[in-house]
Amino acid sequence: MTQAFADRLVGATRLLGPLCVGIDPHASLLPPLFGPPGPEAAARWGMALVARAAGKAAVVKPQAGLFERWGASGLMALQEVCTAAKEAGLLVILDAKRGDIGSTAEGYAEGYLGADSSCPCDAITVNPYMGVDTIEPFVKIAERDGKGVVVLARTSNPGAADFQQKLIDGEPLFLHVARALAPMIERLRGPETGWSGLMLVAGATGPAEAARLRAAARNALFLVPGYGAQGAGARDAMAGFVKGDHGLEGGVVSASRSAASPPGAKEAASAKDWDALIDKAIDAAQAELRAAAS
Amino acid sequence: MTQAFADRLVGATRLLGPLCVGIDPHASLLPPLFGPPGPEAAARWGMALVARAAGKAAVVKPQAGLFERWGASGLMALQEVCTAAKEAGLLVILDAKRGDIGSTAEGYAEGYLGADSSCPCDAITVNPYMGVDTIEPFVKIAERDGKGVVVLARTSNPGAADFQQKLIDGEPLFLHVARALAPMIERLRGPETGWSGLMLVAGATGPAEAARLRAAARNALFLVPGYGAQGAGARDAMAGFVKGDHGLEGGVVSASRSAASPPGAKEAASAKDWDALIDKAIDAAQAELRAAAS
Repeated sequence: MTQAFADRLVGATRLLGPLCVGIDPHASLLPPLFGPPGPEAAARWGMALVARAAGKAAVVKPQAGLFERWGASGLMALQEVCTAAKEAGLLVILDAKRGDIGSTAEGYAEGYLGADSSCPCDAITVNPYMGVDTIEPFVKIAERDGKGVVVLARTSNPGAADFQQKLIDGEPLFLHVARALAPMIERLRGPETGWSGLMLVAGATGPAEAARLRAAARNALFLVPGYGAQGAGARDAMAGFVKGDHGLEGGVVSASRSAASPPGAKEAASAKDWDALIDKAIDAAQAELRAAAS
Repeated sequence: MTQAFADRLVGATRLLGPLCVGIDPHASLLPPLFGPPGPEAAARWGMALVARAAGKAAVVKPQAGLFERWGASGLMALQEVCTAAKEAGLLVILDAKRGDIGSTAEGYAEGYLGADSSCPCDAITVNPYMGVDTIEPFVKIAERDGKGVVVLARTSNPGAADFQQKLIDGEPLFLHVARALAPMIERLRGPETGWSGLMLVAGATGPAEAARLRAAARNALFLVPGYGAQGAGARDAMAGFVKGDHGLEGGVVSASRSAASPPGAKEAASAKDWDALIDKAIDAAQAELRAAAS
């Protein structure tokens, strides 16, 4: 039987640290080294990042939207990057933020998490606005195939205040989302670690909110965006983590710009220079996070 | 200058009626006539539907998720269907339910609504959970290029009750969403009709909620799912429409299964038989909606 996603993820982060390397092919950030901006350069750049991250990080998070902007050829680039990451032994969280009614959600769930996916990933981000019935198809396949489902709760952007933090019966919407997912969190718990592959997005820009989310969902792993370029430090990023035998744990902290596009990387003169810059950026982020966790 | 999306849409629905033909290539519903279930059959079926809808309906709504489940080749099929629809003079609402932070949303917005899109469409559905800043990139391009943005407010599925209907300061979340969009609704108003291309999803399964949405957003066109196969009738579907010189108007009513996969269509023995069944289904839906509107 396939090992639960949560156990695979926590096992790898205990070894390597909580960093999740974001693969966000903004056209303006792609180094000319990889060719003119477009899907081919995005594929080459993404696969080079995968090669750097392998052995240094547990997980990568390709941003589907930035690949999709190039249509079908962008999606082919995304598939190449996901396939390369799986082959390199990395876990893949596809940041697609999908969400739709049952029958369409089943299509998304099989298309991305299913065994015959052309875009192999271990987990996918989903949007809860349409309700719990729209998340169920993802959870069903995650349960069957040892995958994960990452639900937006409290995101890292300023707009998180618009609806997610509005009070319903005295508690913000994002807590209601977390509570409504309790049975799903239970279903995706890994037998080895007790952590759940029903993950919640808990932005690093809201440490107080992350702590409240943790109190409401003790076993959910968190995916924490907003660390680094979006302004939050390592301690804020781990505000929802908890102390255990292995130090602070309870999720992964995503860094895109700071780990994958550090200063100088765009202008790197050679692949060797670029490799060295990325290695340094990943090691630095991982070291900073591990220091904050210990 | 490009005509505003709202004016184009309302102009066409005044001529043809409020039906929006949903193009949902569920593998289980594709007639064997179009080949074995897969992206090629989905493309052929979608283009055949486009040919039937042309001249009979103002707008089609391809469901991105059901194409995407076949990966890059599914996205190519979607691109073929959207291109064929544009060439046939139909308006295209891409049902993709996207939503992400600013820089990624810009990628989605350019990738789908932009002038050099490989997947041409006139409007795209977006999810408001992450906040107004995540919708702004779509509105900006819509304003520039005469396109539309369709925001999920109150959806037609049972899960709409989970979060969308929860009360915040005495009013359901979906009304807060509508109110927060007021400046965007104003920005996308068409000078000819006064209607706005910042559309709201108002499920036919919630006629009372649609009426409240209308009171909160007088100029927003509605996209109404849930009519037909999801159980709501024509009158419920138009609960958020308003009386004007042209009868009841204020949006489009989407029908997928009932218009595109009526009884017998899957088993049709010939293209001619299938054509006749689809013509009849589209005409019947359009007639029922026009009768309810007059």
